[in-house]
Amino acid sequence: MSPTADVRAQILEANRQAAAALRQRFAETHTLVVNLISSPGAGKTTLLEATLERLAGRFRTGVLVGDIATERDAERIRRLGLPAYQILTGGACHLDARQIEEAWAKAGFGALDILFIENVGNLICPTSYDLGEDFKVVLLSLTEGDDKPFKYPAIFSRAELALLTKMDLLPLVTFDVAAVEQQIRTLNPTGTIIPVSAKTGQGMELWCRTLEQRWQAKRG
Amino acid sequence: MSPTADVRAQILEANRQAAAALRQRFAETHTLVVNLISSPGAGKTTLLEATLERLAGRFRTGVLVGDIATERDAERIRRLGLPAYQILTGGACHLDARQIEEAWAKAGFGALDILFIENVGNLICPTSYDLGEDFKVVLLSLTEGDDKPFKYPAIFSRAELALLTKMDLLPLVTFDVAAVEQQIRTLNPTGTIIPVSAKTGQGMELWCRTLEQRWQAKRG
Repeated sequence: MSPTADVRAQILEANRQAAAALRQRFAETHTLVVNLISSPGAGKTTLLEATLERLAGRFRTGVLVGDIATERDAERIRRLGLPAYQILTGGACHLDARQIEEAWAKAGFGALDILFIENVGNLICPTSYDLGEDFKVVLLSLTEGDDKPFKYPAIFSRAELALLTKMDLLPLVTFDVAAVEQQIRTLNPTGTIIPVSAKTGQGMELWCRTLEQRWQAKRG
Repeated sequence: MSPTADVRAQILEANRQAAAALRQRFAETHTLVVNLISSPGAGKTTLLEATLERLAGRFRTGVLVGDIATERDAERIRRLGLPAYQILTGGACHLDARQIEEAWAKAGFGALDILFIENVGNLICPTSYDLGEDFKVVLLSLTEGDDKPFKYPAIFSRAELALLTKMDLLPLVTFDVAAVEQQIRTLNPTGTIIPVSAKTGQGMELWCRTLEQRWQAKRG
């Protein structure tokens, strides 16, 4: 192995161990953990705001937010009166499991039903890092164009759920929904695709029901 | 230094040397080299299509395109009858100078006035890799939101030119152009900001004139 490949293998192995410990911990507390991944500006925080409002009162939720810089996204969630903790990666292009461990300890959320992890805005790097989540969700906004699944195949093949966001903009942009769904199904035949709009509410019920069902299944 | 930091330093040093050799080569041929960086779907290829059409007949242009997978972007450029060569990074989140060296040798473009490098869609990783370019251009599309420069400060402080793309969508999205310009100026007081739309042509003349002036300055 080259020195680069060797170091990368060590990093991924250390991450795998930390993720396994997190997964064990969240299994014991029946906390559903969802890892949200997308390009910058695909609407992760906006989706979370709309989602948390719908889940409020029925589920204890918390959010860990990763960004290169600024506390802005955590502040947006906290403005809803809900717990959020910002992880600043200081340049790194993804979150890793040890950052989740550390942030979880510092955040002091208490027992949660659903923990959302909003990853750094990046369609590539976060794909390889297991954060102890139950599943990954990839968001693709309509304004990014309908060629993206085949251009970024790793995340679309690994995410159990793909959300097509900003559906309210469909009349205004060139985006072939059926073609995108076909690309995603080719990469991930068993995955679920939900077109959503946080603005109009389209798809939000199905997305929240999916979360609820996954939470119930984990609770057993 | 940790093994990780050490390997990273070695990689960046090897890249620096390869980039210096490229810069020397392109200085001799007076080829202006422009490195385009943005999130996926911010409109790099669409901007290039509109740019190349405007420059056609006056400048000898060529495009090296980086992507994780698919030849799609290079095909779009070649459809205009212009030379383009696709670099597939096989998972890597940025182009490096040795890939440019190799691609340049294989592409067989001959003498060029302007070489455009369309980097992998990623607002983080490509920032640290010098490709021997004269300057970096960052594209931010209006649909990504007006909080992005402060969230991704490295690229906005290093790119000499920032293009705000998809300006035709301004009436339809929430995007405070003045606030974004202020963020960018804070990060990069000497940089140039041009709002553009490949659809309506807004800003395209200024952008092409900027390229022409930089090419003339390099020609001496």
